[in-house]
Amino acid sequence: MSSEKVSVADKLSKVSDYWNPVIVGELNNQHVKLVKFKGEFIWHHHEGEDEMFYVLDGEFDMHFRDKVVHLKKNEFIIVQKGVEHKPVAKTEVSVMLFEPSSTLNTGNQVDDVLTQNNLKTI
Amino acid sequence: MSSEKVSVADKLSKVSDYWNPVIVGELNNQHVKLVKFKGEFIWHHHEGEDEMFYVLDGEFDMHFRDKVVHLKKNEFIIVQKGVEHKPVAKTEVSVMLFEPSSTLNTGNQVDDVLTQNNLKTI
Repeated sequence: MSSEKVSVADKLSKVSDYWNPVIVGELNNQHVKLVKFKGEFIWHHHEGEDEMFYVLDGEFDMHFRDKVVHLKKNEFIIVQKGVEHKPVAKTEVSVMLFEPSSTLNTGNQVDDVLTQNNLKTI
Repeated sequence: MSSEKVSVADKLSKVSDYWNPVIVGELNNQHVKLVKFKGEFIWHHHEGEDEMFYVLDGEFDMHFRDKVVHLKKNEFIIVQKGVEHKPVAKTEVSVMLFEPSSTLNTGNQVDDVLTQNNLKTI
């Protein structure tokens, strides 16, 4: 079986809500997800999963307990497992996520109104 | 420990040769790599690893035994394990790779002059 290409712009155009990642690829038990952020998320961490945030468009702040990292287009950050973090976006930002397919958006210890248990694949 | 951000443009500016991926991130036993292609690579496959190619700048053709997929900026393709493929770039293209840290650029069955056994982390 050979593969189909994915246009990130096409997929992003189908994302209309915030904080609700969609799955656009899967490899080696990892998911590639697209998500739009706007506003402030909640503090959380992932017990067993590192998480990568790559900015496709816009900018946001990744808050850690000891610092804030400002991320712009074409920059990424890897948040290691166990590290508390909170994304905050003053304006809309589009982000590509790489993380294990087991990863929950609000972490494993939080069950919040923002928790997305069933992600769509688009 | 909290994380540092990575500027993909900064890292790419340090890549001067073709077909020689550099490691720019690691998470969940996966590597994030940057590579520049120009010309024609060799046919190969990866026995146990899926591989993602995300085009950062430029364009290239991914040849499969049954078709050719043309990839442009902000498009990606996931090549599943076992699937033979050969990247060909008429002009320089910059690509982000996402794959297990065990992945060899020419696949597990090929030891070629193009094989890179010791990737740099930059």
